Amino acid sequence: MRAGITAGELQARRERLLEVCRRDGLSGFVLFDEQYIKYFAGFGYLATERPVAFAASVSGDELVFVPEFEVERVREETAFTRVESYPEYPGKEHPMSILARALTKVGLSRVGADQDGYPGILGYSGPALSEVLGGAVAPLAPQIEQFMVRKSEAEVALIRESARWCEHAHRLLQEYSRPGATETEASLRAGQEATLAMSAAFGGEYGQQSSSDGASAGYRGQIGRRSAWAHAVAHTIEFEPGQVLVTETSAPVWGYNAELERAMIIGEPTGEMRRLFGHMQAAQQVAFQAFRPGATCADVDGAVLGYFEEHDLLGYWQQHTGHAIGLRNHEAPFLDVGDTTPLEPGMVFTIEPGVYAPEVGGFRHSDTILVTPDGIEILTDYPGDLESLLIPV
Amino acid sequence: MRAGITAGELQARRERLLEVCRRDGLSGFVLFDEQYIKYFAGFGYLATERPVAFAASVSGDELVFVPEFEVERVREETAFTRVESYPEYPGKEHPMSILARALTKVGLSRVGADQDGYPGILGYSGPALSEVLGGAVAPLAPQIEQFMVRKSEAEVALIRESARWCEHAHRLLQEYSRPGATETEASLRAGQEATLAMSAAFGGEYGQQSSSDGASAGYRGQIGRRSAWAHAVAHTIEFEPGQVLVTETSAPVWGYNAELERAMIIGEPTGEMRRLFGHMQAAQQVAFQAFRPGATCADVDGAVLGYFEEHDLLGYWQQHTGHAIGLRNHEAPFLDVGDTTPLEPGMVFTIEPGVYAPEVGGFRHSDTILVTPDGIEILTDYPGDLESLLIPV
Repeated sequence: MRAGITAGELQARRERLLEVCRRDGLSGFVLFDEQYIKYFAGFGYLATERPVAFAASVSGDELVFVPEFEVERVREETAFTRVESYPEYPGKEHPMSILARALTKVGLSRVGADQDGYPGILGYSGPALSEVLGGAVAPLAPQIEQFMVRKSEAEVALIRESARWCEHAHRLLQEYSRPGATETEASLRAGQEATLAMSAAFGGEYGQQSSSDGASAGYRGQIGRRSAWAHAVAHTIEFEPGQVLVTETSAPVWGYNAELERAMIIGEPTGEMRRLFGHMQAAQQVAFQAFRPGATCADVDGAVLGYFEEHDLLGYWQQHTGHAIGLRNHEAPFLDVGDTTPLEPGMVFTIEPGVYAPEVGGFRHSDTILVTPDGIEILTDYPGDLESLLIPV
Repeated sequence: MRAGITAGELQARRERLLEVCRRDGLSGFVLFDEQYIKYFAGFGYLATERPVAFAASVSGDELVFVPEFEVERVREETAFTRVESYPEYPGKEHPMSILARALTKVGLSRVGADQDGYPGILGYSGPALSEVLGGAVAPLAPQIEQFMVRKSEAEVALIRESARWCEHAHRLLQEYSRPGATETEASLRAGQEATLAMSAAFGGEYGQQSSSDGASAGYRGQIGRRSAWAHAVAHTIEFEPGQVLVTETSAPVWGYNAELERAMIIGEPTGEMRRLFGHMQAAQQVAFQAFRPGATCADVDGAVLGYFEEHDLLGYWQQHTGHAIGLRNHEAPFLDVGDTTPLEPGMVFTIEPGVYAPEVGGFRHSDTILVTPDGIEILTDYPGDLESLLIPV
């Protein structure tokens, strides 16, 4: 786990993108997106208004482009051999002009790129890559997104590990969510303890950026009537008997995410709560079973919608069945009637059909699953039955 | 503080942007950026692959465009009168097509926008706004960035309040950073306590999104030799005597940020540490004094570079003097020799010239200042002298 993705696997990813460049008659590629740079080069940094880029040529040259103050760290913490830099942004000469010279030096002229220049992060502005290179730049983002959809064994292992820490954080959250406490208190306690446990387990090498990065668990305001809003925002709400709760967790391991969410109830559930909770569980089972060889993302969502329709629950529907997950906590494709992407082994999705009843509350479990040749494997391991998710009063 | 920016001030901001639209012969504006929507409409939400937009017409119509599951929350928590929605993304019909119809209904055809469509967040893809509206879209981002540069009294009040909580979190961080503890432990303890104190003070209404949002303080790995890297990443490093530390803090209040950072030393500083710490303090004073009526951003950075040159410190220089700050924790303009923006009262900047010596450590204080008619007011209030920043061993 300590190393994240191996150098060999990173190299194979780059080689795959270079194959696309060769096919399309490009001299190589340039990447500006933080997540894409992590995917192809394993390089983590604080993305700000100061441009960072990673480039590779079909003839075998590679370069990373960073502000000068990153050079020493890059040499120390990465395996990049060619590090090009600029003094500062905006600087006396715009970093994009300096980048253009560096690219030209290694023969990168007609290139593909994830986007046509550095994105407008935190007030950044500057010329397009096509402008400084003086020629069109072929878009590579759709191709890259396709690469990222099927996870390797190493990626699945990291997502599995993330799932373990989501479970740990969730157990703590469930324990600390008691009448009289607030969502903020429960969330901070669970997050702190789970993060310290991650630190102890990994010796501090799990791809943190900030000192406090690690596991988190909380509610984001989905408490009581607000639980019926699929996305709420936190208000430091105090727990009270009778509330329905919807949780969220996060615990990236070398950047890779699982997702684990549960509906919980404080005190004795009403009959209507039991009924809706049961439908939510059943809808999730429908989704699990819809993963059959040859099916598409839309088929899974269609099966769930069919369940909602059959049980007269469409008034309680709010969101599609789930989304892919990996280096980003949401990513394409989506388990949505509008997404006809075929399911393939190696894809990883959240399965989270929710039942949202304005007067009662919202009921959603989210589990992370791996698509296998003949179905799925559920990567998150946490009780989903109602009795296990009742908070004592 | 509880209300954040008043409805009247938000309306005045929108009116100002509509004036630009009238001047340019546009029927109104459409915004897709989360921070711009917060700036003009005070609306906070979880930005995902599901498009959100806010639009206003010169004839007085306004609409917010959200996924259906957000509609009830929007009605409850905002003052928007017209809420348009779409079932889900990607959905059977693309949300951008639904948005185009909603815009046309209120007479928005030839519009300006912050960007030509929803940004590619978390796997989102879709047609440009110009494509679905069938006509060019005028870029408004440069104009909006200009509006955001000069802060109102209310904005400065929120930044001041943020500074109070940065100070509180920093005091805790300093207290918990002791030999034998790790950066993760100190950071988590300080962040948790300071966030609980914010919750208690504000009653949970300070613009949180997640349950654990609040104050944070930490090192992001800038400990010991890594302190000489202006941006490092965390490694759960253990504190030891002789280390130089560079801190960071954050405590958004209704989205507005101050920044407070300090260089600290564990145990007895060496003579060279004292010398470099003193130069860092002096360089910050040079920056403070360079804020004179008529000066530009470049003048401030030039003055600091002059100090570095004069004292033979250019080898220890890594970053420009500072950046503007507000709704984003970095924003334009930049206190950089390449940014000739004139300084004006109401601008808020960080002042953080650092002295980075590979064999010794990095020395950087960051304070947040308000530009006044005749100089500056320092908004962060935390000791900067060496004796106050020594960690006992």
